[in-house]
Amino acid sequence: MSKNLTSRSEDYSKWYNELVVKADLAENSAVRGCMVIKPYGYAIWEKMQAELDRMFKETGHQNAYFPLFVPKSLFEAEEKNAEGFAKECAVVTHYRLQNDPDKPGKLRVDPEAKLEEELVVRPTSEAIIWNTYKGWIQSYRDLPLLINQWANVVRWEMRTRLFLRTAEFLWQEGHTAHETRQEALTEAELMNNVYAEFAENFMAMPVIKGLKTESERFAGAEETFCIEAMMQDGKALQAGTSHFLGQNFAKAFDVKFANKEGKQDYVWATSWGVSTRLMGALIMTHSDDKGLVLPPNLAPNQVVIVPIYKSNEQLDEISQVANDIMKDLRAQGVTVKFDNRTTFRPGAKFAKHELQGVPLRIAIGPKDLENGTVELARRDTLTKQIVTMDTLTSTITSLMSEIQDALFQKALNFRDTHISEANTFEEFKHILETKSGFVSAHWDGTTETEDRIKELTKATIRLIPMNNIQEAGVCVLTGKPSKERVLFAKAY
Amino acid sequence: MSKNLTSRSEDYSKWYNELVVKADLAENSAVRGCMVIKPYGYAIWEKMQAELDRMFKETGHQNAYFPLFVPKSLFEAEEKNAEGFAKECAVVTHYRLQNDPDKPGKLRVDPEAKLEEELVVRPTSEAIIWNTYKGWIQSYRDLPLLINQWANVVRWEMRTRLFLRTAEFLWQEGHTAHETRQEALTEAELMNNVYAEFAENFMAMPVIKGLKTESERFAGAEETFCIEAMMQDGKALQAGTSHFLGQNFAKAFDVKFANKEGKQDYVWATSWGVSTRLMGALIMTHSDDKGLVLPPNLAPNQVVIVPIYKSNEQLDEISQVANDIMKDLRAQGVTVKFDNRTTFRPGAKFAKHELQGVPLRIAIGPKDLENGTVELARRDTLTKQIVTMDTLTSTITSLMSEIQDALFQKALNFRDTHISEANTFEEFKHILETKSGFVSAHWDGTTETEDRIKELTKATIRLIPMNNIQEAGVCVLTGKPSKERVLFAKAY
Repeated sequence: MSKNLTSRSEDYSKWYNELVVKADLAENSAVRGCMVIKPYGYAIWEKMQAELDRMFKETGHQNAYFPLFVPKSLFEAEEKNAEGFAKECAVVTHYRLQNDPDKPGKLRVDPEAKLEEELVVRPTSEAIIWNTYKGWIQSYRDLPLLINQWANVVRWEMRTRLFLRTAEFLWQEGHTAHETRQEALTEAELMNNVYAEFAENFMAMPVIKGLKTESERFAGAEETFCIEAMMQDGKALQAGTSHFLGQNFAKAFDVKFANKEGKQDYVWATSWGVSTRLMGALIMTHSDDKGLVLPPNLAPNQVVIVPIYKSNEQLDEISQVANDIMKDLRAQGVTVKFDNRTTFRPGAKFAKHELQGVPLRIAIGPKDLENGTVELARRDTLTKQIVTMDTLTSTITSLMSEIQDALFQKALNFRDTHISEANTFEEFKHILETKSGFVSAHWDGTTETEDRIKELTKATIRLIPMNNIQEAGVCVLTGKPSKERVLFAKAY
Repeated sequence: MSKNLTSRSEDYSKWYNELVVKADLAENSAVRGCMVIKPYGYAIWEKMQAELDRMFKETGHQNAYFPLFVPKSLFEAEEKNAEGFAKECAVVTHYRLQNDPDKPGKLRVDPEAKLEEELVVRPTSEAIIWNTYKGWIQSYRDLPLLINQWANVVRWEMRTRLFLRTAEFLWQEGHTAHETRQEALTEAELMNNVYAEFAENFMAMPVIKGLKTESERFAGAEETFCIEAMMQDGKALQAGTSHFLGQNFAKAFDVKFANKEGKQDYVWATSWGVSTRLMGALIMTHSDDKGLVLPPNLAPNQVVIVPIYKSNEQLDEISQVANDIMKDLRAQGVTVKFDNRTTFRPGAKFAKHELQGVPLRIAIGPKDLENGTVELARRDTLTKQIVTMDTLTSTITSLMSEIQDALFQKALNFRDTHISEANTFEEFKHILETKSGFVSAHWDGTTETEDRIKELTKATIRLIPMNNIQEAGVCVLTGKPSKERVLFAKAY
C-alpha cells in the first residue's frame, strides 16, 4: 500500500495529494472543487472541533447558527468586504426545478421560479450576522456579544486542492461586538492566541503570530492577526486569522448602542476563523514518505492492536490479552482499537495503520503470549521495542506525551533552521531558490514594493511578527529606510 | 416579561411563535423562511446532537461530510426522489458577482459566469452520497457501510415556522449500505428505535413507532419507519424517520458489490434523519403559559442561582455560598449558573429564567444566610420549598431525575388520554372536532380513501403502529374490510 506513495523529495505536491486519498482522509467529489471528507479524516476534524469549541467556550463564547444564504443587498452593504468576495460567490437565482418538456425524465430550472433578489451562498457571514446583531444590540448591557458559528462556506476558487483550497469548506467563524475599540482589539488578539495555543499544543504545529500587511488583510478589516506555520517544503501556510473590523460593519448595518453615558455610538467588531484547511496543515507538518503521522492528541485511534495468529485458538487467546490491554488503556483515557478483522493479513494491517498514522501499534503473536510481552511500534520514529505486559500501560501513557512533544520539537527545529535573514535582494532570491523557508528581511512598508517582490519571487509578506524586534535597516528591494524585519515566504 | 406571552388556550399557534422568540431560542432572518438559531436555542440543539451522536457511534456509525451541492444530473438520477424534491430546490446557476454598471456600488450576477450544469442545494443527500459510495463499495468486505452526516439542508417551503418548517434547517442524515435486504430492513428499524429511545429518555417526549403508508413515505423509499409525538394541541408531529430504500439508489447510481460467492449484486440501502424540528417538538410537548419547560437532560443550565441583596456586602456573602453550592453541584455533574448580573433586578431574573425553562431556581437572600437555607423553585410544577444547605445537593440531584420522569409521565398521560377509537365516520369527525388528538380507526388500505379522509377532515394517517393488534373491522369511511386500526391525526 504505502509503497505506492510518491516520496516528498520526488514530488511534494503529488505526495500530499496521494496521501490525502490513500489514508482515507478526503477525496474529490462530483461537484467541481468540493470534497468529500471521509470518516477517518472527519474523525480527526471532530477532535479539532471539540478542542477548539472547548477553548472558545472557556473564553466566554457561545455558539449560534445563522442562515446559509445572504441576500445580495445585504452582501453588498459593506463595500470592501463585498468587493473582496464578489468574484467567488455561488449565487442562488431560482427556487424550483420542473420536468424538462424536451427531455423526458430530466429536470430543468423552472423559469417562473426566479427569485426577486438573488441569494449569495455565504463565503463568510459578517453581512448576515451584523444585519442580525442590529436587532440584538441596543445598549452597553447587550455587550460584549461573543458568538461563534460552526458552518460550511463556499468560495468559488478556480484552482482547488483537498483541504487546502476547496470551493466548499467547513470552518468556525467567531463574530463579536464590543463597546470600545480597545476591547475589540484585545479580543482579536486573544483569539489569535487561542489559535496559536491550539496549533502548538494540540496539533504539535509551531506557529508564528503576527499581523498581516494591508494588502493581505481580510476584506473589510482594519487589522488582521494571523498564525503562520511552515510546511516541510518550506512554504508558509496561514493557519488561522483574527480580524479587528473597527466600526466598518456596524456602520454598514447601522448597529449603534447607548453607552453608559446614554450616548449613541457604533459598535466595534471582530471576526476570526479556522477551517478544514488545518487538516492540510496537520498533514504537511508531520507526515513522511510512508504516510500520515498524527500527534496523539488528534489521532482517532492512538493505539491499534494487531493479532498475529495461525489458528482460531490462537486468535482467541490473543483476543483475551488484547481485551485486558484495551481495558487498562481506556481507563487511562487512551483510545485503542483491536484490529481483529479476519479478511486482512497482519502485513496489510500494518501497512494501513502506518499509512493512517496511528501513533502506536501493538503486535501480539503466540510467542508474545508465552513470554508475557508485546511488540510496540512507534509511528513517528518507526522504532520497535518489546515491552512486558506489566509495564505496557505506563509505557504507552508516557509515550503519548513523548510523541506529542517530539513531533512539536521536530517541526520547531525544522522551522527554526529554515528562517533566514536576507540583507540584499540577491541573498533574498538565493535563499528562496536554494534553501526555501521563510526570509526575514527589511521592507519599506509600501504595497508597491510588496507587490513588486511578489512579482519577482512569488514570495509574499506572511506577517509582521508580534513583539517584533525594532531594528533600523534598509528595504531589501528599494533600499529605503525600514525599522523592522518582516517574514516573507512562498505560501499555500 | 412572561406576562406578555399569549396563553395556549387563547391561541396555541401564537403562543408557540412568541415563546420561541421571547425565550431567545430562534428568530426569523432577513432570508425568507430561514431562521437564526440564537445561542440559548443552539445550546439545547448541541445537547441533542451530543447525545444522538453518542448513540449513533455506539451503534457502529461514523461521521463524514459530503458536498452541499448536487449537480442536477445526479439529482435527477433516482426519479422518485427527484420528483419528490424538485419543487422545493434552491438552485445555484452562477458563480460570480460583478459591479452593476447601471448602479454604482451595487453588484449583479455576472452573466458570463453561468454554470454549465446547475447545482441543487441539497434538500437531502442520497444522490451525492450514493454517487460517492459507488467508488467505495466493490465487495462484501466493504459492507456494511454505516455513515452519518451532520449538515444543513434547504427545502424551499412556501409556509414556514420557526423550527417546525424552515427553508434551511440543520439535521443529521444517516446513509447506510448493506449486503442483504434483511440487514438493511433491520438497520432502518434499529435507527427508528434509537430515535424513539432518544425522544423518550432524553427529550421526555413519548412517541409511537410505526410505518408510514405509501403516500406518506419518503420519496424513493420502499418503507418508511417513523416516530410520531402528540403536541399539547392534540396534533401529531413526525419527530424522526428511517427509510428502507431497497436497491433504488444502488440501481440509480449503479452501486454493485461482489458477494461472498463472487457474484455481483446491487447494494441495499437505508437513510434516516432527525432535524432542528425536534426543537419545535420539545417546546410544544412540555412548555406552559409562562414559557419554556425543559427536561433536565436538555437544559443548558439545570440550575440557576439568583442572589437577593441590598448591599455589596450582602452580595459578597451570598456569592461565597453560591460558589460552594456550584462546586458541589458540578461535582455531581449538574450544570449550574450564578446569575450575579448587577444590571437586572431579581424579579426580572426570575421571569427570564422561568421563560427560558431552567428546571430549578435557587434564590438566596440575607435571611437564608442566617438560617442556612435557600429557596428552591421547580419550573415544571411551579412549586417552591425551603431547603437546608446540607441537603441541597442531594435534593437537587434527585429532583433532576424526578423532573425528567415527571415531564415524561405528564406528556404520556396527555397522549394516552387523547387517543380515541372511532368506529364510524361520524365518530371520527366528532373526535377531531371536539377532543382533538389521535384517532384509531380501521382503514381499507387504499391511497384513495386516505386522500378522501384528508380532504374531509384534514387528518392524515400518521402511522401504522409497530406490533399493531390484528383485529378484523371495516373501514371508517368506505365500510370495506380491514384487518387493523391505524392512527389518524391532524399534523404539523
